[in-house]
Amino acid sequence: MARTLERSSEKPLYEQIYEQIRDDVLSGRLPEGKKLPSKRALAEQLQVSLITVENAYSQLIAEGYVRAAQRSGYYAAYSGEAVEKPKAKPLRLPDSEKKEEQPPSRPAGADIFPFSVWTRLMRSVISEKGTRLLQPVDNGGAYELREAISGYLYRARGFYTPPENIIVGSGTEYLYNLLIQLLGRDKVYGIENPGFPKLAKIYALNNARFEYIPLDNSGMRADELEKRRVDIAHISPAHHFPTGIVMPISRRREILGWAESGDRYIIEDDYDSEFRRSGKPVPTIFGSDDLERVIYINTFSQTIAPSVRISYMCLSDELCGLWRKNLGFYACSVPAFEQYTLARFISEGYFERHINRAKKRFKRVCELTEQLILSCGNVKISEENAGLHFTVRLPENSAEIIAKCAECGIKVTPLSDYYAEGAACEDSLFLVNYAGAVEENLLKAFGKL
Amino acid sequence: MARTLERSSEKPLYEQIYEQIRDDVLSGRLPEGKKLPSKRALAEQLQVSLITVENAYSQLIAEGYVRAAQRSGYYAAYSGEAVEKPKAKPLRLPDSEKKEEQPPSRPAGADIFPFSVWTRLMRSVISEKGTRLLQPVDNGGAYELREAISGYLYRARGFYTPPENIIVGSGTEYLYNLLIQLLGRDKVYGIENPGFPKLAKIYALNNARFEYIPLDNSGMRADELEKRRVDIAHISPAHHFPTGIVMPISRRREILGWAESGDRYIIEDDYDSEFRRSGKPVPTIFGSDDLERVIYINTFSQTIAPSVRISYMCLSDELCGLWRKNLGFYACSVPAFEQYTLARFISEGYFERHINRAKKRFKRVCELTEQLILSCGNVKISEENAGLHFTVRLPENSAEIIAKCAECGIKVTPLSDYYAEGAACEDSLFLVNYAGAVEENLLKAFGKL
Repeated sequence: MARTLERSSEKPLYEQIYEQIRDDVLSGRLPEGKKLPSKRALAEQLQVSLITVENAYSQLIAEGYVRAAQRSGYYAAYSGEAVEKPKAKPLRLPDSEKKEEQPPSRPAGADIFPFSVWTRLMRSVISEKGTRLLQPVDNGGAYELREAISGYLYRARGFYTPPENIIVGSGTEYLYNLLIQLLGRDKVYGIENPGFPKLAKIYALNNARFEYIPLDNSGMRADELEKRRVDIAHISPAHHFPTGIVMPISRRREILGWAESGDRYIIEDDYDSEFRRSGKPVPTIFGSDDLERVIYINTFSQTIAPSVRISYMCLSDELCGLWRKNLGFYACSVPAFEQYTLARFISEGYFERHINRAKKRFKRVCELTEQLILSCGNVKISEENAGLHFTVRLPENSAEIIAKCAECGIKVTPLSDYYAEGAACEDSLFLVNYAGAVEENLLKAFGKL
Repeated sequence: MARTLERSSEKPLYEQIYEQIRDDVLSGRLPEGKKLPSKRALAEQLQVSLITVENAYSQLIAEGYVRAAQRSGYYAAYSGEAVEKPKAKPLRLPDSEKKEEQPPSRPAGADIFPFSVWTRLMRSVISEKGTRLLQPVDNGGAYELREAISGYLYRARGFYTPPENIIVGSGTEYLYNLLIQLLGRDKVYGIENPGFPKLAKIYALNNARFEYIPLDNSGMRADELEKRRVDIAHISPAHHFPTGIVMPISRRREILGWAESGDRYIIEDDYDSEFRRSGKPVPTIFGSDDLERVIYINTFSQTIAPSVRISYMCLSDELCGLWRKNLGFYACSVPAFEQYTLARFISEGYFERHINRAKKRFKRVCELTEQLILSCGNVKISEENAGLHFTVRLPENSAEIIAKCAECGIKVTPLSDYYAEGAACEDSLFLVNYAGAVEENLLKAFGKL
């Protein structure tokens, strides 16, 4: 297949290669099972470095378009018909797309979060807004924040959703509560098993019917959704907690197909997607959903700080209308001041710069964490190159390594903790969560080892 | 009855008179129906001004200990046995009781809310907390905010509740949602009719069973609670919305007795109690509840700004334990930064000074609003000297006055809007809400009239 790359384009070369192969797989030009050129051969053919092709292949593998067979090469792994494309691009891009005018003048300090920028924005917001700060914002959230989020999603997650369809709330737990009120507690919710234990608690406290849906290597099983008469599938395809599974394109399509074949919905919990450590973020299901069956939900608790309680969800036009009619009377639960500050933080480009810095740090921390664990000998790390956690197979007597990790702010918990209803889980599997890791302590730990 | 006043006491003379007569009524020394001395006679006897006695009598009437009969004088109006006293005083008063060290140096500006103080506190919080700002707070709320609220309630509302029993959340609507999860949706909730329309919506969206309970002149009818098999009575005894009724002591006792005679609870919604325009605030039911049947709930949305989404509830030890067990996993929904700032605002005395300023302004605004309405002729204002609204009987053709009020930011709505299930309500009664009144426009309106 003849491929040409635009070397003057702003789009990285690896991304151009990724997109061309992805589109070939989706269009059937590269049918399932067809062998791809070796990395070395493609690199020579395209006159790019090996690492560029490696990056493209990694992304294709992560998203399930390509599979790697040991010692034998790479194969197309999906036969689809519809073309995955972002939702209609807005005629006029959101204002936040405009080039930033004020680059940060001070370098980032020891902390990841740019405090000085945040506080400067706070002061600007105070002086610019004046007494308008005391006025309540729209019940869906401050418009400028929703506009900033819309622009961010377009740039970072590749889909456009109008600001009016974005609902801001104080944390995803709060939004889950709203969603149950929006969709009804007579519906059956399907949640991932293993998964976030809080989710089951929230559905139970709301007297909503829910079913634990088992996973396989591709994530939530679509056949089980059908079998257990689920109406709403609650999934985290970008990076499943706790297994780390990135849902491949085949399963995404399968679950979307399931949702489209009835009055069903998908809640796409995109927490953690920003922290994919290499390559670009895995596309969302929301972005390829033409029939409005997907609700997208994400939070700033992980990307900024857990103490900043701001999350949001993107609703289809239909659900947005339903929200306005039935739930629109709820005042927005996030203080106006925090919303204005965050809006500025995003629209002036600080958020994405912060994410990039954070990604680099988490990459270092992840590598150190892996080294720390590997230094203990008989362990096997299962790693999906995404998010702030991975799983590891530890030997029976691993109290020492767990304690060492704890000293560095790394939580190691048995994977079985995240299974419900006595679902089978090997005892030797553990979840390693390094979101709270202290880099200094990690470096010290190596001195001690 | 011989009365002596302590003239050197910090307690105002009117409050001493009020307390002595209240205790005489509660103890039976002043039995129901017994005539009190005339205001003039008591003023002479105690060597105080007539206005001092008037203030004491007004408070006693407002709380239902005394009734005034036209042209005939004042009578004890309640025969109770238990003595109303605040819950056990803490051995060590909360830290926030200590004298403020930093009085505000700048006079309050045109705005009621002291912005400059608030922003100064924000800056102090940023510099003092540093990166701790990014850490999540306790799920019940930041301890220093709960401590500040505890101190404030003790000083302003006369009861002590430990900080651990105070749960902070982003708005009362959010807390109602939590309460339904805490108490269960299989319970029957009794809500005031007329009342806040949002309340019925929230119970309905949560699939909680609820009954509209009619009111009489004393507020929610206790006999109807019994009759309709209610488990949880949701009331606003300090100042009922929209009628403005202040629940007298007799009805408070009756409803508390109802709650104590079963596995029943009272949700005491104390919104608006701060703005009682003269005298001291009416005591809470929570403060006189020894059997832990009352949940106290209040918000800063009215007292600070609707855009500051901070509310709180005080739970009994038992309910607090249940909350920790079942709902304790919910992260506190209010940003940490906002909580720290509010904690400082309260503990350094600014909140109470702000309330006092706001009360004075609202008193002026209320008087202007009344004048504006009375200037239109055939109207009758029913006024309980409390809160930010009152009711008025308007003539049939009152579009002009409603429009005039709207120009001044005053909302005038038919009282029938707040009745459910076609409950009887006279067409001529209107609710006048002057919370959003613009004083300048009011003054201008008089120029125009």
